[in-house]
Amino acid sequence: MIRSTIQNASMQTVQFSHLESDYMDSSTNKPRSHISQQFNTDLEELKKHMLEMGGMVEKQFSGAMQALIGADSTLGERIAADDDLLDQMEMKIDEECNLIIARRQPAARDLRLVLAIVKAIRDLERIGDESSKIAKAAIKMSEQGEFPEGIVDLRSLGDKVQRMVNSALDSFARYDAEAAIAVVQEDKSVDNDYAIAMRSMVTFMMEDPSTISKVLNVLWALRAMERVGDHAKNICEHVIYMVAGTDVRHLNPNKMSAKINA
Amino acid sequence: MIRSTIQNASMQTVQFSHLESDYMDSSTNKPRSHISQQFNTDLEELKKHMLEMGGMVEKQFSGAMQALIGADSTLGERIAADDDLLDQMEMKIDEECNLIIARRQPAARDLRLVLAIVKAIRDLERIGDESSKIAKAAIKMSEQGEFPEGIVDLRSLGDKVQRMVNSALDSFARYDAEAAIAVVQEDKSVDNDYAIAMRSMVTFMMEDPSTISKVLNVLWALRAMERVGDHAKNICEHVIYMVAGTDVRHLNPNKMSAKINA
Repeated sequence: MIRSTIQNASMQTVQFSHLESDYMDSSTNKPRSHISQQFNTDLEELKKHMLEMGGMVEKQFSGAMQALIGADSTLGERIAADDDLLDQMEMKIDEECNLIIARRQPAARDLRLVLAIVKAIRDLERIGDESSKIAKAAIKMSEQGEFPEGIVDLRSLGDKVQRMVNSALDSFARYDAEAAIAVVQEDKSVDNDYAIAMRSMVTFMMEDPSTISKVLNVLWALRAMERVGDHAKNICEHVIYMVAGTDVRHLNPNKMSAKINA
Repeated sequence: MIRSTIQNASMQTVQFSHLESDYMDSSTNKPRSHISQQFNTDLEELKKHMLEMGGMVEKQFSGAMQALIGADSTLGERIAADDDLLDQMEMKIDEECNLIIARRQPAARDLRLVLAIVKAIRDLERIGDESSKIAKAAIKMSEQGEFPEGIVDLRSLGDKVQRMVNSALDSFARYDAEAAIAVVQEDKSVDNDYAIAMRSMVTFMMEDPSTISKVLNVLWALRAMERVGDHAKNICEHVIYMVAGTDVRHLNPNKMSAKINA
């Protein structure tokens, strides 16, 4: 997964839609190149690092899910400990962004790319944090004994959210605003599933109060997943801004589409 | 409060400590001025807008707290509805930051200021979101009947977090890294109080399952407050980076102090 995301990121394989017209040189039908080749290289490296961080975040999230479903406290401990690596990565890439802005003084689409990365790495770091929380819920669940009634909801929401994160990173790699809008749309369905799962868990607690502490672990894990979905959505909003040069945050997906195609 | 924060923000009243040495011109003992007076004005305006947004976020949070403590659903509805205004403000200021970077090509401390604002407004917007959640919990609490056992914990955590947000904005206005570190330190105590309050609420649920749905509202509100504390801490980390030019995220406060004084 990580590798395919990074491959997608290379300039050669980028697919350009009608939205990315200013990324293209119409005379050569290739991406525009900068006067300085070094600048191109810097930007590509930066994007590669962001997508590598994205790949690592995906691994953390799927590891946390595995620990949760399998009530595997050893895996849970490892996932929680690895969060530090993501923190380091975020700071390094953030510094890289600052240096590029200061030295290269990017404008227009290049500036939008760098600022989109500044923002996206914060969302990635938060997905890492939420994965840690899921891993910690997994540790508690393995101590307190499983609660099989929660596993179905956890697995189904987790799978959906994982696909969202993956598609968000792919849309970034391919500068694909339409794909990004599709992910934003998906977030509604995640919020809906989350609300249903929460209600069913609360009903369990009320019907059998002896399950309260077990059910609470499921609630915290569900909540963390819902937040991961929010961060995937945020990343997509950065993609749309980067590609279309228009801020679509807080719009509903139909209005987003209308705005970037205006 | 808002007014005093904005007054503090004006360049004339900034207090410079040993940490802000590159903000000072040693020959005149005044803040360095830019070749372009217009650039100075742009940066001051930008910071003023950020602090205005901060003032509005403080009002939202305190309104949400008031709705919660007073089980006031009318106030709760108004607070939840006003969140849109903050979203608009964030987008406007974000655009302003992009324009300043593109047109003025700021470097060093100016670039750090602009990037700190890019990040801080996202935290402010999130504090607004969490305030909405608290307001919604207030509406539910007023519908389901109060749960007086929760009010003490809610009020005490809310007050602490509100002071954190206020101090975080003040430290930004005054470029005061030491004050920012103090806020980061305060976040530990918030996390601690939060954990104690959560445990006591869960005990209530277990001892009297008929309280489950009421207690859950308290849990969600406590959780939102704890997150507001996290965002206040983030803002302070942006302040420290802006002032000291060093990334202190994910360090403990003692190490932060050591690093910026190194």
